[in-house]
Amino acid sequence: MKIAGTHYRTIWPKGEAVEVIDQTCLPHEFATLTLKSAEDCARAIKTMVVRGAPLIGATAAYGLALAMRDDASDAALDAAHDRLLATRPTAVNLRWALARMRDKLRNHKREERAALAWAEAAAICDEDVEVCRAIGEHGLEILREAAAKKNGETLNILTHCNAGWLATVDWGTALAPIYMAHDAGIDLHVWVDETRPRNQGASLTAYELGGHGVKHTIIADNAGGHYMQAGKVDLCIVGTDRVTANGDVANKIGTYLKALAAEDNDVPFYVALPSSTIDWSLNAGRDIPIEERSSDELLKMTGRLPDGGLATVEIAAPGSPGANPAFDVTPARLVTGFITERGVCAATAEGLRRLFPK
Amino acid sequence: MKIAGTHYRTIWPKGEAVEVIDQTCLPHEFATLTLKSAEDCARAIKTMVVRGAPLIGATAAYGLALAMRDDASDAALDAAHDRLLATRPTAVNLRWALARMRDKLRNHKREERAALAWAEAAAICDEDVEVCRAIGEHGLEILREAAAKKNGETLNILTHCNAGWLATVDWGTALAPIYMAHDAGIDLHVWVDETRPRNQGASLTAYELGGHGVKHTIIADNAGGHYMQAGKVDLCIVGTDRVTANGDVANKIGTYLKALAAEDNDVPFYVALPSSTIDWSLNAGRDIPIEERSSDELLKMTGRLPDGGLATVEIAAPGSPGANPAFDVTPARLVTGFITERGVCAATAEGLRRLFPK
Repeated sequence: MKIAGTHYRTIWPKGEAVEVIDQTCLPHEFATLTLKSAEDCARAIKTMVVRGAPLIGATAAYGLALAMRDDASDAALDAAHDRLLATRPTAVNLRWALARMRDKLRNHKREERAALAWAEAAAICDEDVEVCRAIGEHGLEILREAAAKKNGETLNILTHCNAGWLATVDWGTALAPIYMAHDAGIDLHVWVDETRPRNQGASLTAYELGGHGVKHTIIADNAGGHYMQAGKVDLCIVGTDRVTANGDVANKIGTYLKALAAEDNDVPFYVALPSSTIDWSLNAGRDIPIEERSSDELLKMTGRLPDGGLATVEIAAPGSPGANPAFDVTPARLVTGFITERGVCAATAEGLRRLFPK
Repeated sequence: MKIAGTHYRTIWPKGEAVEVIDQTCLPHEFATLTLKSAEDCARAIKTMVVRGAPLIGATAAYGLALAMRDDASDAALDAAHDRLLATRPTAVNLRWALARMRDKLRNHKREERAALAWAEAAAICDEDVEVCRAIGEHGLEILREAAAKKNGETLNILTHCNAGWLATVDWGTALAPIYMAHDAGIDLHVWVDETRPRNQGASLTAYELGGHGVKHTIIADNAGGHYMQAGKVDLCIVGTDRVTANGDVANKIGTYLKALAAEDNDVPFYVALPSSTIDWSLNAGRDIPIEERSSDELLKMTGRLPDGGLATVEIAAPGSPGANPAFDVTPARLVTGFITERGVCAATAEGLRRLFPK
């Protein structure tokens, strides 16, 4: 996607290193960061310089490739794999990308591994772009049908967190259909959940949609149910960090509440995902590890001062503790359908297996 | 309740004026503000120096009393009534208190009105304290029973927004049972929804609970459903700004989402209210006017800088618009029971009428 007229991916090779957009600076500043080692990549994932399940996977792949430059031994491969895997527990794309890299490299000689790893990481990135484009095209059909029922009125879509191009290598998952629908001339408007506590909606999704010229409105996470009751939401699309084989969906904390409201108001609730987000090894969402993050993310807030500088302020009652689970699980029964690179399917074991046979 | 050892109400007469705790300064600073006219009271309500349905009613009553000091004519009475009523649309206690005051004064001579109004406003405040105490006692029985089922484990209660003593004249509605249970030695812990966009949970409820020594944890509004799924919420108690005759509940935006999650996880969901919050003239929540407030409340945040000073920062993508509905409606079907000054009843027209016959 474009930033001020220049096309960017979220991650790209730069000489012997990897360059990423530093998402902790957005929306206040557009900055990039150079990652020169596996440790740099691990830190970038852990501190959320990069975030979003597909982009985490891509960054970990490059991390493993950077590790192979320094030491291509089996021991180094395993160590880098384990270090990168330990950065964040919930998104399964991390595990998927690291397993794919390691499986590929293990069958090759040490002296071939660095070049192979670099090429494989690049392939993962290129494939992610194509997969997201395909998700966008399949989702576009859903939006076309929904728009056709509006008789010329604006189609209202609600999304939670950021599952846009910043969460992937390009295009996005939940936002890819929205960009394609906008480009196809469909009149649409997006309700952007601010997505506390890290505000990825207000800071990243709004930034993306504004940059692409898509009509949108930031709302408190609390407000989506009210707008659904009022008939002002035609459908919801969100991304996901892990889908279990039975169709349960781990996504940003609060997704479950929106899915409940969607069900209560007969609003379709779609989840967009690349198949690398499916965890075939788990049969129920309750088995997904839910990351606990620092309560500072909740109790402090960073923003722009009137003079343009940035400041971090404490916003809660002094001395009161906070808790910060980063994800929740939406049961499959609340999901209307999955939008994948192979098409749309029911949020069931059978639905997933029909699109992705063993 | 006590602030640093001194007993305070949220509003009290001071000479010929009225003193209130300035809630826009909390939790960063404890300050009081003197209201000398009906216009001062109207401004205090509109800018949320005072907030919470019962306290809004009490402040409006004093506003009318202050107006009578200046001009006790019928025209002045009507003008002050209408000016104060126009400050906020959703909480019905405002209408109730103003109607009670005007009805009382109309039947008296002009020269008696100022003194009578002052006494009536004081009576409304004193009654509010007693009503909240009674709500606390009835709610305490619910908490006793819930605690008895915990076999010595901590009772976990979730609340949304602030329905504590700061929302009333003293005691609170939703928090009154919690204070009484704490004082009775029941081991309890409160999940405090931060309550975006104005953060009344993180700033006021946490401040209150911390001041009273009640164990609590601030969480993002997004997190409550996850904790309910995990079995970490035994019951919810919230306040309300207006209950319609059929039992629908208007309360702070986001309440509906928590009620949905409570239903989905078999968690009892109670609403605590004085009978002055019942709007007998409406038969469905959809007829309640929902206040739209400035999007600045969503897009900017005030907090403490590391040096202790306060700053307001912009937190969202520049140029992105926001929308800020302040309340939503929870359908009666999602409410386990109403805790009122006369006892607990079902959230139905019959339940309400049994406790409050015509």
